[in-house]
Amino acid sequence: MTQKLSAAQAPALFTLTTGPVNCYPEVLSALGKPVLYDYDPAFMAYYENVTRKLAKALSSNDMPIVLQGEPVLGLEAAAHSLVAPEDAVLNLASGVYGAGYGEWLKPRAKDFHEIRVAYNDVIDPEAVDAFLSAHPEITLVAVCHHDTPSGTINPIQDIGQVVRKHGALFVVDSVSAWAGVEVDIDACCIDLLVTGPNKCLGCPPALSILTVSDRAWDKMAANRAAPRASILSILDWKDAWKATEPFPFTPSVSEIYGLEAGIDRYLAEGPENVWARHAKTAKAMRAGIKAMGLDLWAVSENIASPTCTSIKLPDGVDETDLRSLMKEAYGVVISSGRAETFNKLVRVGHMGPTAYPLYTILALTALGGALGQLLDKPFDIGSAVTAAETVMRS
Amino acid sequence: MTQKLSAAQAPALFTLTTGPVNCYPEVLSALGKPVLYDYDPAFMAYYENVTRKLAKALSSNDMPIVLQGEPVLGLEAAAHSLVAPEDAVLNLASGVYGAGYGEWLKPRAKDFHEIRVAYNDVIDPEAVDAFLSAHPEITLVAVCHHDTPSGTINPIQDIGQVVRKHGALFVVDSVSAWAGVEVDIDACCIDLLVTGPNKCLGCPPALSILTVSDRAWDKMAANRAAPRASILSILDWKDAWKATEPFPFTPSVSEIYGLEAGIDRYLAEGPENVWARHAKTAKAMRAGIKAMGLDLWAVSENIASPTCTSIKLPDGVDETDLRSLMKEAYGVVISSGRAETFNKLVRVGHMGPTAYPLYTILALTALGGALGQLLDKPFDIGSAVTAAETVMRS
Amino acid sequence: MTQKLSAAQAPALFTLTTGPVNCYPEVLSALGKPVLYDYDPAFMAYYENVTRKLAKALSSNDMPIVLQGEPVLGLEAAAHSLVAPEDAVLNLASGVYGAGYGEWLKPRAKDFHEIRVAYNDVIDPEAVDAFLSAHPEITLVAVCHHDTPSGTINPIQDIGQVVRKHGALFVVDSVSAWAGVEVDIDACCIDLLVTGPNKCLGCPPALSILTVSDRAWDKMAANRAAPRASILSILDWKDAWKATEPFPFTPSVSEIYGLEAGIDRYLAEGPENVWARHAKTAKAMRAGIKAMGLDLWAVSENIASPTCTSIKLPDGVDETDLRSLMKEAYGVVISSGRAETFNKLVRVGHMGPTAYPLYTILALTALGGALGQLLDKPFDIGSAVTAAETVMRS
Amino acid sequence: MTQKLSAAQAPALFTLTTGPVNCYPEVLSALGKPVLYDYDPAFMAYYENVTRKLAKALSSNDMPIVLQGEPVLGLEAAAHSLVAPEDAVLNLASGVYGAGYGEWLKPRAKDFHEIRVAYNDVIDPEAVDAFLSAHPEITLVAVCHHDTPSGTINPIQDIGQVVRKHGALFVVDSVSAWAGVEVDIDACCIDLLVTGPNKCLGCPPALSILTVSDRAWDKMAANRAAPRASILSILDWKDAWKATEPFPFTPSVSEIYGLEAGIDRYLAEGPENVWARHAKTAKAMRAGIKAMGLDLWAVSENIASPTCTSIKLPDGVDETDLRSLMKEAYGVVISSGRAETFNKLVRVGHMGPTAYPLYTILALTALGGALGQLLDKPFDIGSAVTAAETVMRS
Repeated sequence: MTQKLSAAQAPALFTLTTGPVNCYPEVLSALGKPVLYDYDPAFMAYYENVTRKLAKALSSNDMPIVLQGEPVLGLEAAAHSLVAPEDAVLNLASGVYGAGYGEWLKPRAKDFHEIRVAYNDVIDPEAVDAFLSAHPEITLVAVCHHDTPSGTINPIQDIGQVVRKHGALFVVDSVSAWAGVEVDIDACCIDLLVTGPNKCLGCPPALSILTVSDRAWDKMAANRAAPRASILSILDWKDAWKATEPFPFTPSVSEIYGLEAGIDRYLAEGPENVWARHAKTAKAMRAGIKAMGLDLWAVSENIASPTCTSIKLPDGVDETDLRSLMKEAYGVVISSGRAETFNKLVRVGHMGPTAYPLYTILALTALGGALGQLLDKPFDIGSAVTAAETVMRS
Repeated sequence: MTQKLSAAQAPALFTLTTGPVNCYPEVLSALGKPVLYDYDPAFMAYYENVTRKLAKALSSNDMPIVLQGEPVLGLEAAAHSLVAPEDAVLNLASGVYGAGYGEWLKPRAKDFHEIRVAYNDVIDPEAVDAFLSAHPEITLVAVCHHDTPSGTINPIQDIGQVVRKHGALFVVDSVSAWAGVEVDIDACCIDLLVTGPNKCLGCPPALSILTVSDRAWDKMAANRAAPRASILSILDWKDAWKATEPFPFTPSVSEIYGLEAGIDRYLAEGPENVWARHAKTAKAMRAGIKAMGLDLWAVSENIASPTCTSIKLPDGVDETDLRSLMKEAYGVVISSGRAETFNKLVRVGHMGPTAYPLYTILALTALGGALGQLLDKPFDIGSAVTAAETVMRS
Repeated sequence: MTQKLSAAQAPALFTLTTGPVNCYPEVLSALGKPVLYDYDPAFMAYYENVTRKLAKALSSNDMPIVLQGEPVLGLEAAAHSLVAPEDAVLNLASGVYGAGYGEWLKPRAKDFHEIRVAYNDVIDPEAVDAFLSAHPEITLVAVCHHDTPSGTINPIQDIGQVVRKHGALFVVDSVSAWAGVEVDIDACCIDLLVTGPNKCLGCPPALSILTVSDRAWDKMAANRAAPRASILSILDWKDAWKATEPFPFTPSVSEIYGLEAGIDRYLAEGPENVWARHAKTAKAMRAGIKAMGLDLWAVSENIASPTCTSIKLPDGVDETDLRSLMKEAYGVVISSGRAETFNKLVRVGHMGPTAYPLYTILALTALGGALGQLLDKPFDIGSAVTAAETVMRS
Repeated sequence: MTQKLSAAQAPALFTLTTGPVNCYPEVLSALGKPVLYDYDPAFMAYYENVTRKLAKALSSNDMPIVLQGEPVLGLEAAAHSLVAPEDAVLNLASGVYGAGYGEWLKPRAKDFHEIRVAYNDVIDPEAVDAFLSAHPEITLVAVCHHDTPSGTINPIQDIGQVVRKHGALFVVDSVSAWAGVEVDIDACCIDLLVTGPNKCLGCPPALSILTVSDRAWDKMAANRAAPRASILSILDWKDAWKATEPFPFTPSVSEIYGLEAGIDRYLAEGPENVWARHAKTAKAMRAGIKAMGLDLWAVSENIASPTCTSIKLPDGVDETDLRSLMKEAYGVVISSGRAETFNKLVRVGHMGPTAYPLYTILALTALGGALGQLLDKPFDIGSAVTAAETVMRS
């Protein structure tokens, strides 16, 4: 009489996606703490303390801002808050997410410019320099750090220094890179960073994290188009981290508990150690992919993100068939492409709790096994795992 | 060497506020379940199933919409989605929240009208009828069901029938009433209901729940000002509950787990039973308040919400002093007024896990005890508790 | 179609018993941490660390022993381990639990002696002195610190000093007192203390905590009747706390997580502060009881335990009727008597998370209300609550 | 300033031991539910209900008994309860645990017999038949189903039928097999089965589960040596599952919550499905082991347990070095041998949440990788993983 869930409906054994990823156990435990009233002074003091820890995790001298929705909220809010009707903006698009950001910038700016490269490549800082030289009126430049649907990572430090040289504000979407790779806000000259706890920090999706430079605060304050009394307002939350200030609206209490646990773990492990295991995991994965005869999506491995491996889909394979079989036969869930990259690649995330090298052999086995079945020819899982293991032990 | 948290910084023993309230234990347990990838078919099927249960909890034939932010998001999104630049709208304001909603309606409508009554009173359906007769061009009427900062509850069924008679859309903010009192969407002729899991359903704050009538969907679809590709879009989420459809962006997975647990509990206990204990709790509280010689804020008890008791602040008492002393000496946290009602009243929530009559004696003891100390004259806690207990045993 | 649990079957709203009590939220969160393999060096180091913290909580210089079963295991194991067939032992019985301990001592000793007093009274240290002077052959004296079925607390410091003077070992059952009142192991000359995390420490029932003096270890080691390779063995666990030593059998991993959380909370709040709120809660409760015209069970209030208030059952009341009505009408569960005290008294626990003065008014209201209904005459809840509140604010 | 835990002290990424294994997420969530008073009628009814579900999971017509300590308690209690001073008993020893059980039987019986085979072999039912024919006075036969330190599984159905034929009671330790393989209590003629939730049911270690035949109950009741009023008593708990009966002492409330969650999951997945994936996991593991050139410990693969793979340690490898390196370099923890099997084998558990075929490649990679490093010669991880994957897809 008992019923077994179909393999498709059963939860994955291993969620090796580009996010949401499963959370660290500490985070899951923290989510269930009793919910306090947001105006209980105990909660207000707690919120300030979490913000201070977050600043430490960001190596930021300024108090970061937590918005109460997953990072798309932070991204949309940044476009609404920073872009004034008289602005000329430059969007840097090396992938689906970077290009998508233009859709939020464009309707708000007087002039919208874009540098677009192939979605398996990254932005060239020199091209940005040249463009800004030709367009000194540009006041804001936006880029996606790790364009997740491509798995490629832009050189934000070089780009940021170019942008700063030209005096524009620099907005960076580092949602799926931060906490998995180093993001030096000062060295990268970032004026507004948007990230989230739901990728490399190992927390659930429900919050945005922002850092805002003084210049960016000034710009927003001066921008009459910047939202206020809105969920899209960043300004409303400027001082909300202070124990003495009211919240614009009720923060997501349980998610803040989870965020704290994620930060505590990150700081306890040591950010450098966390970045190192993300990098090593990615390296092991790529060694395995190549040993199996598959190709990386990125034009060159050195632009592939340490937090995600994008693999070119072999000819004759439908990505939905592939991912379905990987789940049903092996219990492994990985990510598809999106929009222009859909059905051209698949992606294995190396984020937070799954950014340990041993996870790669799960992905390699399921991927090779499923491809072998779909194409009815063997994929050399053995060599793949051996190659990955060689990286692990190094 | 050990340190004790100050009484102010220590978490409350009893959070008897108007929300966030603490959650049911089932909900807290559910929050920590492993986070699934949103595109895992297991999660997509799960999300559809939760939405179906939610429809049942709402007694709704239509699939409700869950937006990924606490109910202010749903409220703001409704204003943005429904109000077209050519519309005339009528806002019904019997309190701070009802009046506040006008701030979102006004800038989006061609003509903005408002019926405003004293903040200890409720809207008269006949006045609405008269107004709509005089303004047949009005296409949308908005009201706050339980205006929380006043603790008063509007007669939404009578108002709704008037609105429907005149053909306008009826938008109801029932965030802090739904699941504590009956909300019959059909009988009340509600076109767009906004509520949330974080009040009487006993879940954390992080989600909005909406029901949308066919007329309201049509209106949004026809409204070129309605947001799309935005966190403020309702349209984007129209079909997202279906296991086969993509999400506009990542839903707040852990919060959906909590929501399901809250709905399961609500349905298992039986909505009628849940409403009955909210009502009895409110009745006990009011018996106690009156026995102690205090006054309800509402002009008449029959407009006081079953989910909140608002108490007029006695002369000479500062509300911050009062609430601080209640917490520090007794461990009880209650809510203050807001804006126009600030420092004129205090509020005790009867919501979800605290909507059991026995909780009232905690509030009565702490309130009477603290008032006695602040005013240096005895408040008759004994009579208050006796009166409340008499209601309990009835 | 929905069904409501009967009031009897529904979980209590407030569990105000003498244990198990509900746990602190920190403890509940900790229980769900991932279960480690007991021989994972990470767990072995963790176990040692928890034991060190426990030693701190016990103010003990020696490493305490955790046995893997609720405190009856520790009590039985102590009798088996310490009593040799040639021993003469003295049991001090001032209640059901103290007397019950004799049942474990008697069959193991050559001679069994007992001082027994009325179960609403406590042991007189002078009587112990006289008895030991008359019986210098006695090698072991056992006493129950807080005899829970009576709610009375023995003067263990005075007794212990008498016992030490005569050279006997002193075994103390402080299961339901430790962590709610000070237990100074050295000043009380305790050779073997048995307690547990499931009362005043606010953890679940599943573990025993023991401290063992060098003399007691020597006695056990020399006792050929002492169990080994048995769940009843204390000796087997002597060194098991060391990260380098094996466990005799698998420890209850999840419960150890809970224990750590309970200790951390206890140390963070400060033991003195914890004891003070237990004492104040008891004081408030007793003020209320007396104001309602009820009698304490104890012959004198100064022998009533700070961790429990035992109330003499009024004539004509059946305890099961009373406790059932308290639960069904109010949601409050309290404890009955046991064996000789059954149906003579009821007990309200003040332990761990319920040892805050405000909890007393819940017990007073439910008790007074239910008694009033059962005896069909009013009990003055008002005066009771007023009296309790007067203590609270002092 | 941040510190990284040493690799040894860091918790394992993957605990692939023979138990404790990590728990199912449902179980971890359930552990944190509010602790009820054991005499709350709600808890008493709940306990009965859990016992009824457990009976269903055991396919038992009789009510099982839950003892409040990990399975060694159940095993020791069975020896104490069943063996009377006048009994002749036969112990069947095919491994460390089976032989160890003799240590509990021997001191309690008049005559103690044992059939002992090599620890990589299993008991021959015909030998048992012959022995019992020669010793008709034997009243009790005990066997360990899966002798965990060897990873071998005895043919309990054949043995049981022989034992029944001769009229003796049959005691089976199936702690680490039940719920991972079928145990048909009737067909196996088991009079007393001891198992636990902490292996294949995916719960934490803290409880024993027993089924007791009428004959075994009669034997215990007639046995004056059977413990009563002791943690070792089974008789004390005979009726404790009934909602109307008292508990001998406080049950481990939180662990009962976990047990229920484990049973619910087991029944929902379907026991046959659960057994099938245990078997398939073991098969994949063994294919991998052999492909890597390693040997199973068992003399023949068909006596190797579906819940554990024991691998002969290659010459020149110290097991502690091996397991340390597997943890430090790969994050994988497996089990060592015990006593006579220590340093002769290592063991990989396939139990509960780790009994999915894909887990085997984690063990194979870490094992092969570490052996390669220790012996400074390559182990063919590639072939191992390929062989395991071939089983998976079959």
